[in-house]
Amino acid sequence: MLNIGLLGCGRIGQVHALSIARMDDVRITALADAFPEAATGIAAKTGAKIMSADEVIASPDVDAVIIATPTDTHYDLIHAAARAGKAIFCEKPVDLSADRIRDCIKIVTETGVPFMTAFNRRFDPNFATLQARIRAGEIGSVELVTILSRDPSPPPISYIERSGGIFRDMMIHDFDMARFLLGEDAVTVFAVGAALVDPAIGTAGDVDTAAVTLTTASGAICQITNSRRATYGYDQRVEVHGAGGMLRAGNVLENTVESATGAGFATAPTQHFFLERYEAAYRIELTQFMEAASKGAAISPNIHDGLAAQLMADAAAQSLETGLPVSL
Amino acid sequence: MLNIGLLGCGRIGQVHALSIARMDDVRITALADAFPEAATGIAAKTGAKIMSADEVIASPDVDAVIIATPTDTHYDLIHAAARAGKAIFCEKPVDLSADRIRDCIKIVTETGVPFMTAFNRRFDPNFATLQARIRAGEIGSVELVTILSRDPSPPPISYIERSGGIFRDMMIHDFDMARFLLGEDAVTVFAVGAALVDPAIGTAGDVDTAAVTLTTASGAICQITNSRRATYGYDQRVEVHGAGGMLRAGNVLENTVESATGAGFATAPTQHFFLERYEAAYRIELTQFMEAASKGAAISPNIHDGLAAQLMADAAAQSLETGLPVSL
Amino acid sequence: MLNIGLLGCGRIGQVHALSIARMDDVRITALADAFPEAATGIAAKTGAKIMSADEVIASPDVDAVIIATPTDTHYDLIHAAARAGKAIFCEKPVDLSADRIRDCIKIVTETGVPFMTAFNRRFDPNFATLQARIRAGEIGSVELVTILSRDPSPPPISYIERSGGIFRDMMIHDFDMARFLLGEDAVTVFAVGAALVDPAIGTAGDVDTAAVTLTTASGAICQITNSRRATYGYDQRVEVHGAGGMLRAGNVLENTVESATGAGFATAPTQHFFLERYEAAYRIELTQFMEAASKGAAISPNIHDGLAAQLMADAAAQSLETGLPVSL
Amino acid sequence: MLNIGLLGCGRIGQVHALSIARMDDVRITALADAFPEAATGIAAKTGAKIMSADEVIASPDVDAVIIATPTDTHYDLIHAAARAGKAIFCEKPVDLSADRIRDCIKIVTETGVPFMTAFNRRFDPNFATLQARIRAGEIGSVELVTILSRDPSPPPISYIERSGGIFRDMMIHDFDMARFLLGEDAVTVFAVGAALVDPAIGTAGDVDTAAVTLTTASGAICQITNSRRATYGYDQRVEVHGAGGMLRAGNVLENTVESATGAGFATAPTQHFFLERYEAAYRIELTQFMEAASKGAAISPNIHDGLAAQLMADAAAQSLETGLPVSL
Repeated sequence: MLNIGLLGCGRIGQVHALSIARMDDVRITALADAFPEAATGIAAKTGAKIMSADEVIASPDVDAVIIATPTDTHYDLIHAAARAGKAIFCEKPVDLSADRIRDCIKIVTETGVPFMTAFNRRFDPNFATLQARIRAGEIGSVELVTILSRDPSPPPISYIERSGGIFRDMMIHDFDMARFLLGEDAVTVFAVGAALVDPAIGTAGDVDTAAVTLTTASGAICQITNSRRATYGYDQRVEVHGAGGMLRAGNVLENTVESATGAGFATAPTQHFFLERYEAAYRIELTQFMEAASKGAAISPNIHDGLAAQLMADAAAQSLETGLPVSL
Repeated sequence: MLNIGLLGCGRIGQVHALSIARMDDVRITALADAFPEAATGIAAKTGAKIMSADEVIASPDVDAVIIATPTDTHYDLIHAAARAGKAIFCEKPVDLSADRIRDCIKIVTETGVPFMTAFNRRFDPNFATLQARIRAGEIGSVELVTILSRDPSPPPISYIERSGGIFRDMMIHDFDMARFLLGEDAVTVFAVGAALVDPAIGTAGDVDTAAVTLTTASGAICQITNSRRATYGYDQRVEVHGAGGMLRAGNVLENTVESATGAGFATAPTQHFFLERYEAAYRIELTQFMEAASKGAAISPNIHDGLAAQLMADAAAQSLETGLPVSL
Repeated sequence: MLNIGLLGCGRIGQVHALSIARMDDVRITALADAFPEAATGIAAKTGAKIMSADEVIASPDVDAVIIATPTDTHYDLIHAAARAGKAIFCEKPVDLSADRIRDCIKIVTETGVPFMTAFNRRFDPNFATLQARIRAGEIGSVELVTILSRDPSPPPISYIERSGGIFRDMMIHDFDMARFLLGEDAVTVFAVGAALVDPAIGTAGDVDTAAVTLTTASGAICQITNSRRATYGYDQRVEVHGAGGMLRAGNVLENTVESATGAGFATAPTQHFFLERYEAAYRIELTQFMEAASKGAAISPNIHDGLAAQLMADAAAQSLETGLPVSL
Repeated sequence: MLNIGLLGCGRIGQVHALSIARMDDVRITALADAFPEAATGIAAKTGAKIMSADEVIASPDVDAVIIATPTDTHYDLIHAAARAGKAIFCEKPVDLSADRIRDCIKIVTETGVPFMTAFNRRFDPNFATLQARIRAGEIGSVELVTILSRDPSPPPISYIERSGGIFRDMMIHDFDMARFLLGEDAVTVFAVGAALVDPAIGTAGDVDTAAVTLTTASGAICQITNSRRATYGYDQRVEVHGAGGMLRAGNVLENTVESATGAGFATAPTQHFFLERYEAAYRIELTQFMEAASKGAAISPNIHDGLAAQLMADAAAQSLETGLPVSL
């Protein structure tokens, strides 16, 4: 039985608690949240004890911690949990500063604790299947990758202001997906963007529509587009062209009903947002973390993957600011 | 050069004239129509001469005739053309009476003239590809066939009244398609139907919505549905299940544009009606007739195929009337 | 809090236990299974007590029972539970004999206990959405319904032998779906079928490939096909044509990955079988039963729906045997 | 009757001759080709006279010329035809040099002859419908455009060497499509590319895989990708995101047949190459030219559109060479 301490009982913490409820040999034993009342629901269902984050980390009844707190608290929690020898599952981004991530890598490396950076989309059954088929050689060497990610609607301006900007907040998932699909690192990053959805986002110093071009040492190219708006739901697609063919993974619609009338054929919108779209991904990533942590096996994506995506986001932000490509 | 006499210059005659314009080594030399002015457009483009049907058939400048006149004239024209030794391309149905078709078979057999019954759908690239893949063994033995055919809207009541009824006028195409896909003849026919689209069709003694179940000696089953209405265009689909898998052929949409909005995803209606949907089929069937006629090769579908479909239509009409299955 | 007694802890009982684990205000308090060891897993996770079926029904800690035992035990359990005043959720079929179902209706009616016949497919989000849109008038009056249901592979002959035959075992779901979509009862049933998948099924007195045609008082037509084999997975589709258009609901594929190579485009098979395909349906049907049972609201499908489908299956079996349509 | 002089009777000249055969009130009266035998087939079918290009242009029996000769001959033919007062339909590109196109604009403007630059894809029914729906406001202001264009296989190196490079030879179509869909001009161009399909293309100084990012004054972004290889056929897609939704136009497959087996579902490859894919587009563009030329109406795309696309191609080539974005 693996005993879990859950740090942060907000929306994403609740998702992880539900995933654990479906697992054998794993249970939540300790909970912490800045607003303890957020933890009471999970405590009631699981019998876990509510305590402070420090107490969770110090608890001998905790083998591993799930860090699902605000980003600016990750740094200290990672350091404390690593020093306490706990396996760490940390929501992305590890930190908004690459230097501070490097500090985290240092403590994780020194202590040798298992660490997963929770890039959940790698575990989406659609994207995971696609990537496995690339790695199995089905389309030969990868030449061109297209990643599209659109949210149904923009978050509040207050969220935008402390998000680190679209590249560090939203496209960071796509940067990790690019590395996952390309199988190699980007060497140049070029970004363009504009505030087309909401001028207030521009006023806040950010963009809501962005496109990035990556190149790799092998000559492969990756194009990423992001928008904070998609009237038809959460749009999440990838397409990969290789020497031998193409693989793509599309959206999941709300249902399979199709209608036909004088106007033509019509189907449902996409599943609304990430909690529906990535429900399986959240469960699978946590399962894989639990298995790796309990067996001492290698974990992917690890903390270095967290840094790599952050450096790409930093480079994209710099490119947008300067109007020039940035080398990595 | 193969010289063609075109009997009937209405809508379908015009289609055949256009197909011939795209062929090498084939030309129209003689034209006839009950309304000679209908023939003048084709005459102007091709240089063919307008004459009476008898003169077309008698003309030494005609090697083959296309019979595209009203159904009740087919019998006499087939007899005359066969006696004149002309190859015959005859629009379906050969006749509304099975006995009269048997007479036609007799004269065609005696004279040995090439004869094609123009079941154009066999030549549709979608259905033809599907059938070729069945015959190549791709899905093993055929077990279950579904054929759906829906017109965009019902014809005038005056047309219904002299049509021979939905089974002889509309489903006859599907009976031929059933034989084409099943690769064997039906041994029982069961039909149900109702006038749901327009009560006046019921008053005229016909139905506008019908479903037929066929069984074959091998135990294979075929279900056919017809409706005189489809608000979204001309609906033409087949689906075939075999021991090893399934093959189906769908509709062709007006264009490939897809939109996405808050209501979901939407595509165009199907191509409107048979002239658009079967444009390629009309061209290919005539090309194959011309090739077979000029080389003396076997022709399919032949006049026996025309009779077989008619007998199925007669059986379906009888089944609808009696409420009982009919053996063939 | 609603206290549930689970009768039968096999495959489908496990599914219901998982569904309850995700519900608020519902818990399993008592368990029974002919093989008590089958119950130990659920007992360990829920704290429910393992006892005999009679004890479960008699327990004051049980408000409602889920009957997930073999079909031939339903009759006695329904009578006992009804007499004990428990709400009853009963797996389909209620019984293989229409007369015995009538007995069950009697006791359920006399005691007034809430009763759901578990035709789970009505709760599939795809079919449920489609039916709601029909009822909302989106395509006008229903004219033609097509229901296709194919299992990935046939069950063992030992299962076939005690199944009641394909109409009572497999197509019974489709008979209920037909009533659900048509919105009225069938007045005639005509069935054809053959043992094409496995001759041993024929030797056992059953067929594995079957097609049924239903007609209703309004003139609407429904065609149903069943096969015990689909090499590409579990095939579950419906298509409904109305005066104003068409609605259909398709399969759910294993994933959304599409590949393109010289051979063309390819996608995944359908979800393998009913546990995957109807996972949401099982959860939603139980949730609706719990809500209705706890509020005393009307339940659909009820025990009369269970009888109606059984009578259609009986009629189809008779039609296949006699070769003639059967009136209901 | 409009009399046409066809300059160039190669592959694309043959396509135009077939289109004219289907038009009323238009005929080919004069033909020229560097290899006169290439013209004999068309001459035989149409009765047009074979002569030199100069004679065609000088002929009083010619109202309009179709320039379908090698690109390096366009300049002189345009000048001669314009001076002779003939309407001009000119294959793309007008010329590989922007300055020489400016010369052509001068003579066309001075003489006032009707001129169409044959960017045929604007007339593809899929892309034309999509663009009309954008212009009609269906998705609001355009924010993000993606254009993908992949040939089935690379042309011979000898072709590559005199092609002007991938941006001027292949992506020029997509630059025009970008302007067509965006409804405004690009202000910056950034290009990346590599020779991934065939190293010999790299040795020849070109790339075979390229991606371009355009930005416009309004902030809209366009991403274009090109590859000289697609194992599954000719891949031609566009996708446009606006404030109110998305519109995309996909490929046309060889047929609508879909198979299902244990491996999943499979459909046909795309139509093989441009002659099949753009058959309707070629016919429609020529029809629109004929109508405009005979009525003196405005023509689109005109010679200025030819220059605009060329300047984008030049900018992309410069960006690839320098590694920096280029302003237009």
